[in-house]
Amino acid sequence: MAKQRKSKVMRPQARPPKGFRDYFGSEVVDRNAMLEAVTGIYHRYGFDPLESPAVETVEALGKFLPDVDRPNEGVFAWKEDEAGWIALRYDLTAPLARVYAQFRNDLPLPYRRYAVGPVWRNEKPGPGRFRQFFQCDADTVGSGSPAADAEMCMMLADILEAVGIRRGEYIVRLNSRTVLDGIMNKAGILDPDRPEAAAQRRATVMRAIDKLDRLGADGVLALLGTGRRDESGDYTPGAGLAENEARVVMDLIAPADGRGDGAGRVRAALSDGDAGGRDVLEIEKLVRDQGYGPDRIMIDTSVVRGLGYYTGPVYEAELTIMAADARGRPQQFGSVAGGGRYDGLVRRFTGQDVPATGVSLGVDRLLSALRAGGRAAQGAAEAGSGPVVVTVMDRDRLGDYQAMAAELRSAGIRAEVYLGNPKNFGNQLRYADRRNSPVAVIEGSEERSRGVVLVKDLVAGRQIAEVIDTSAEWKSQPAQFEVRRDGFVPEVLRLVDAFRLPPEELQAELARRRDFYLGRL
Amino acid sequence: MAKQRKSKVMRPQARPPKGFRDYFGSEVVDRNAMLEAVTGIYHRYGFDPLESPAVETVEALGKFLPDVDRPNEGVFAWKEDEAGWIALRYDLTAPLARVYAQFRNDLPLPYRRYAVGPVWRNEKPGPGRFRQFFQCDADTVGSGSPAADAEMCMMLADILEAVGIRRGEYIVRLNSRTVLDGIMNKAGILDPDRPEAAAQRRATVMRAIDKLDRLGADGVLALLGTGRRDESGDYTPGAGLAENEARVVMDLIAPADGRGDGAGRVRAALSDGDAGGRDVLEIEKLVRDQGYGPDRIMIDTSVVRGLGYYTGPVYEAELTIMAADARGRPQQFGSVAGGGRYDGLVRRFTGQDVPATGVSLGVDRLLSALRAGGRAAQGAAEAGSGPVVVTVMDRDRLGDYQAMAAELRSAGIRAEVYLGNPKNFGNQLRYADRRNSPVAVIEGSEERSRGVVLVKDLVAGRQIAEVIDTSAEWKSQPAQFEVRRDGFVPEVLRLVDAFRLPPEELQAELARRRDFYLGRL
Repeated sequence: MAKQRKSKVMRPQARPPKGFRDYFGSEVVDRNAMLEAVTGIYHRYGFDPLESPAVETVEALGKFLPDVDRPNEGVFAWKEDEAGWIALRYDLTAPLARVYAQFRNDLPLPYRRYAVGPVWRNEKPGPGRFRQFFQCDADTVGSGSPAADAEMCMMLADILEAVGIRRGEYIVRLNSRTVLDGIMNKAGILDPDRPEAAAQRRATVMRAIDKLDRLGADGVLALLGTGRRDESGDYTPGAGLAENEARVVMDLIAPADGRGDGAGRVRAALSDGDAGGRDVLEIEKLVRDQGYGPDRIMIDTSVVRGLGYYTGPVYEAELTIMAADARGRPQQFGSVAGGGRYDGLVRRFTGQDVPATGVSLGVDRLLSALRAGGRAAQGAAEAGSGPVVVTVMDRDRLGDYQAMAAELRSAGIRAEVYLGNPKNFGNQLRYADRRNSPVAVIEGSEERSRGVVLVKDLVAGRQIAEVIDTSAEWKSQPAQFEVRRDGFVPEVLRLVDAFRLPPEELQAELARRRDFYLGRL
Repeated sequence: MAKQRKSKVMRPQARPPKGFRDYFGSEVVDRNAMLEAVTGIYHRYGFDPLESPAVETVEALGKFLPDVDRPNEGVFAWKEDEAGWIALRYDLTAPLARVYAQFRNDLPLPYRRYAVGPVWRNEKPGPGRFRQFFQCDADTVGSGSPAADAEMCMMLADILEAVGIRRGEYIVRLNSRTVLDGIMNKAGILDPDRPEAAAQRRATVMRAIDKLDRLGADGVLALLGTGRRDESGDYTPGAGLAENEARVVMDLIAPADGRGDGAGRVRAALSDGDAGGRDVLEIEKLVRDQGYGPDRIMIDTSVVRGLGYYTGPVYEAELTIMAADARGRPQQFGSVAGGGRYDGLVRRFTGQDVPATGVSLGVDRLLSALRAGGRAAQGAAEAGSGPVVVTVMDRDRLGDYQAMAAELRSAGIRAEVYLGNPKNFGNQLRYADRRNSPVAVIEGSEERSRGVVLVKDLVAGRQIAEVIDTSAEWKSQPAQFEVRRDGFVPEVLRLVDAFRLPPEELQAELARRRDFYLGRL
């Protein structure tokens, strides 16, 4: 028995590690198209690309993620015999700090770079939460100017519009860590004589404020006070503020009359000496000077952006359009990008503070928003996105079929010869349908003897198959026509070119074709 | 003393792990441009993109690299508590086998995909040899047809021409493992009654043949016979063939009269029953039918492609142009891409053989060939590749300067405001030079009062600085001119647009400008 089991072949599971996934076809194409638009804006603003390796030494990477409280959490790290501990990068900012420290004598100052690529988090995966995902960042290292922060906010607005989000469907919200400190000072809740207790309370208050969008004012109020029990029965202890203290905080982050006058609340929160928070007002002035109104960029004193490495202004781009979630319920997309100033990140290497500010785009999040809103290439255009398939009627003539595919490609048409077993012709057409092919080209011996080929309009064929219901009718195969072998390329081009039309025109063209073919029945 | 040491701040080294590197600016831009051309060809041939994660389970990844003999060598792998052993992918083929096995019921058959991305090898780094590098693959899974192999060879030729290698500067060499076996049978050097000894000798002979390009016929002859001592004195034992046996092998892989008639040598090597090797002849016929002559694709019976997973036809694209190596010595670039048929890779998961064939591009290798040949965007065009820099003369007017940059960007010009400390104007111009900026725009209070801005032609300025040798002359700053503030954008555009010209026209335009400015001195 034991022997038998041993001799049984153990096959590996065909599965990626838990929390990782594959991206197919249009998922990759759409993302690349979006990233090209985004990096096009970064480039236009003067940023240069940088590509650092996927791994860094644990030492260089440091021990903090931008959005979590606890150190050294959520990183894939392992020990190499020679190299010591190395780790997969968890974001694109920590490697930037390393690169800047390493090459600071050779790099222009300020150093303005953008970076695109995967990052890895060793966290519990969940629905829609993966352990490898894309980020797309731009940072200015070596400038403390509010103009650098203002540029980030304007660039975020430009990026969202460049990828297809309309004005009014997003908002860039701006705040500063110093404003949040000013609010807490105003409420008198941080005891300067007990710095440790004050730091802890500060963290608890900021965590509470960070939940405003999710829990609403009542939820935050509870978390500022005694604590809050959620629907599941879980209890989160509060910051222990007295009711009047909590009121001061709430009035400065989410007043009952709406969050309109952010600048006014910033001024109310700051004492005369708080130079830091004034940066936010200067940034607001700069973006207004450029014509970016409150419909695009606004101060929102409730923006926190986690407890990570930010030291001054923080900003967050949020989609305000609603979309259906996985269960069809309307849902706000929320934050798709954000960033801020982090003046301390290079110090770890050099001992000197280097001012820096930057943005990071949640690539997968933004892409799913675009797809949900129908802004990514999909639908009708995808129906014809596959290659033209030249079918194989006679396997001794593969060379002729490859020549036909080559002619199509020379005309700019995506095309291939069917390379599976050609015996079953139905399989060839099923393959073409599965590939979203717009057209199949058929040349049997009979067609060949007459010097013609059959051009099969697969998209129209699929649509007709949906409206006519007897297989007898279908057998007459209306959605195809004969053309001369020496003139078939322009005919295929005509059918394929339609898929480059704007969606409405494409729909009209497909309806026209359908009617034409059906009229011949 | 011990305590003092302890209190000293230990700073991390600002360095990537050994064998890893960063890519800056034009290195990234050039590679992306090249990859876009390559994937454009893959797409045109009908392949769909696939992006699998960087990590796989060690189990799924399997234990062999394509080009090395020993199993489980050269992979970055580590143990995660929950997930078990996981590893960074060492190529793009092993993940493809996993994806195909996992999704085979949902994927079209044949499944044709391309993939681009980094792979990792835990090998000793050396000059120009890094532990993370790019691959760019296309594979057809589920087709045993020689037409699928022929397509790969033709696609390799098309790719090299698409990225700028001219016809005649490359050759795609084609062979088959079964031809190599036929050659060894012909020489009578594998004893069928002693399969283990035969397998070992087969490996030694193939390793010897694989070194033909590097060591020449004499070196291979030595390795087929008693062995070879290299210049350093290291000794490599040979396969132990008798001289007449080795002669048979040599005549079939590298006859004294040149390697011209590959098909003839294939026929000479094969007995009537060797169906496999005939594939090579069929592939040759197919590519000839498409007009790919021996100047682009040729049979070469000495092609081996390592001892990895290939089971039938193998192919290799080689650059035949010479280029200077790091020390300026002429050097052949050699292989930049290759591939072959590997029918056994999916069996590990499913127990069934699935025919598959594919190519892999050595991205960094091909890119350095392009750069060495001046085919990648460089030189004169790079001199103006940076952003137009709007300088800061008055830090209270940052908003005005940002508005100028925004106007330039609206006209499609890459532009930014100088965001460093504006106090030292020389630093601003040095920054622009370091960024390869084509133009700096200057508006001080004096210019502002007159409604003008200064447009500084930085590329011409740099060139003039090289030809005139007194700083006194230089101080007259000829390479700049005044324009109206409300009409400065078209003037900048005129200067910047030149960098989109073909190299010769750009050179002529720059010479014209230089003469114009110098004429004003």
